[in-house]
Amino acid sequence: MSNQSSLSLPLVGSYTFQARPFLCDHTFQLFMAHLGNALLNASDYHSHERGFGVSRLQAQHRTWVLSRLAIEMEQMPRAYDTYTVETWVPTAKRFFTSRFYRVVDAQGKMMGQGQSIWAMIDTETRQPVDLNAVSGENDTTIMNYLEPSRQLTMSPPSRVAVPADAELKEEVKTHYSDVDINGHINSMKYVEHVLNCFDTQWWRHHSIARLDVAFVAEAHAGDCLRIYGAQTAPLTHAFRLTRQADNEEHEVEVCRCEMVVRMNEETE
Amino acid sequence: MSNQSSLSLPLVGSYTFQARPFLCDHTFQLFMAHLGNALLNASDYHSHERGFGVSRLQAQHRTWVLSRLAIEMEQMPRAYDTYTVETWVPTAKRFFTSRFYRVVDAQGKMMGQGQSIWAMIDTETRQPVDLNAVSGENDTTIMNYLEPSRQLTMSPPSRVAVPADAELKEEVKTHYSDVDINGHINSMKYVEHVLNCFDTQWWRHHSIARLDVAFVAEAHAGDCLRIYGAQTAPLTHAFRLTRQADNEEHEVEVCRCEMVVRMNEETE
Repeated sequence: MSNQSSLSLPLVGSYTFQARPFLCDHTFQLFMAHLGNALLNASDYHSHERGFGVSRLQAQHRTWVLSRLAIEMEQMPRAYDTYTVETWVPTAKRFFTSRFYRVVDAQGKMMGQGQSIWAMIDTETRQPVDLNAVSGENDTTIMNYLEPSRQLTMSPPSRVAVPADAELKEEVKTHYSDVDINGHINSMKYVEHVLNCFDTQWWRHHSIARLDVAFVAEAHAGDCLRIYGAQTAPLTHAFRLTRQADNEEHEVEVCRCEMVVRMNEETE
Repeated sequence: MSNQSSLSLPLVGSYTFQARPFLCDHTFQLFMAHLGNALLNASDYHSHERGFGVSRLQAQHRTWVLSRLAIEMEQMPRAYDTYTVETWVPTAKRFFTSRFYRVVDAQGKMMGQGQSIWAMIDTETRQPVDLNAVSGENDTTIMNYLEPSRQLTMSPPSRVAVPADAELKEEVKTHYSDVDINGHINSMKYVEHVLNCFDTQWWRHHSIARLDVAFVAEAHAGDCLRIYGAQTAPLTHAFRLTRQADNEEHEVEVCRCEMVVRMNEETE
């Protein structure tokens, strides 16, 4: 990719996905973990095209780490729907960038929005990397790709507070299918395991209005995850996830998650 | 969809997918369960466009049931690869149709092939439906869409024999994320749970050469799955999966699966 071609790209990237029926739940709505993966994939495509993708960073022993993510959905894509994820980087600080998302349907109507916060780390020292020192092709930096003028109406990702007395809801052993290309547990798998704390009957009557995830530490395939949850308001549930590897004496917090739901109108 | 438009469609449907990085494993290869879902999605698109899709059948209280599936892969799509699934119906009998697949890369080179066998059932009586009596739009039947001339080099899906002394490998509780739009456990989730019997280290050294799945009964979210496995040849593993719902006294066989692997060349 030449400097010219990546600098001539629009600041906002648009990536179109299909809500394929076998990625949808029993209410014909796209699984939220798949929508989250679509946002992560859009993030990766957008940074990849501009010279800051994970595959290029790998050679420099660096990678992106997702720190926080919030998604607000007015309407989920349904089976067979085409939807587009628009993404851009509104701001970047020394050690963090934020990334915004709009999810629009085939007619261009907004279905939802999202915000994420990312850090870059050195994969050998595990230390944060100064983003000003990271060059794409031909000496561009991330600062060349900022789009501060497009804003969202949602509030930023929350730190997520979970009551100390949250109860153990599930114990989940992680496996091969939980990993991502980095060899860690895929961020959206935490969300999938949290949503599995509710049964299919419950999901007939509830949809996710907003989801916040604060990522704290990584987990690896084989680790046992424990999910502690509490209902903190009539339509709000908060979760703390811990990992425990075979060689670990104590649980380690890996992420916290808050979900605000809305009641579906009766469909049956 | 008018008769004219569906009858004027080519007999072979081609559907292009992306091996998005967050659908790939730690070796950067697409998860086999996702490839299988892509084949199922291609099947659904192909039948949908020709008037025999699940969403149209639902109104007639009918649905497709996957009976057997075999996939042979020479090479798996890797992260960022585009791949195309070609699918067609070579033959249809009174109560079964087969469906063929070719998976080709962006240059048109064959990466793998597949075969599946499907029945249609009445969702109220659970009885098989005579396919000659099922009409698409404007009185077409499935027999209008057969393409018997394109053959594959692979052998048909096997019934899968599993040794009686296969050992219990895993017990898996199924959840919301395991269901498909029919409300049953997604066929490819059985495959995912089987592949999870091997750890990430093992998957660095092995790739799937061929996978056969024989589906016997349905399972529902909340059912406990038990996976019994045996190594039947140096590179062949066979599995029997059973379900047990809370109200079931005994295990019920849900599917059998055979996996032939090849050893990867050393990559590290």
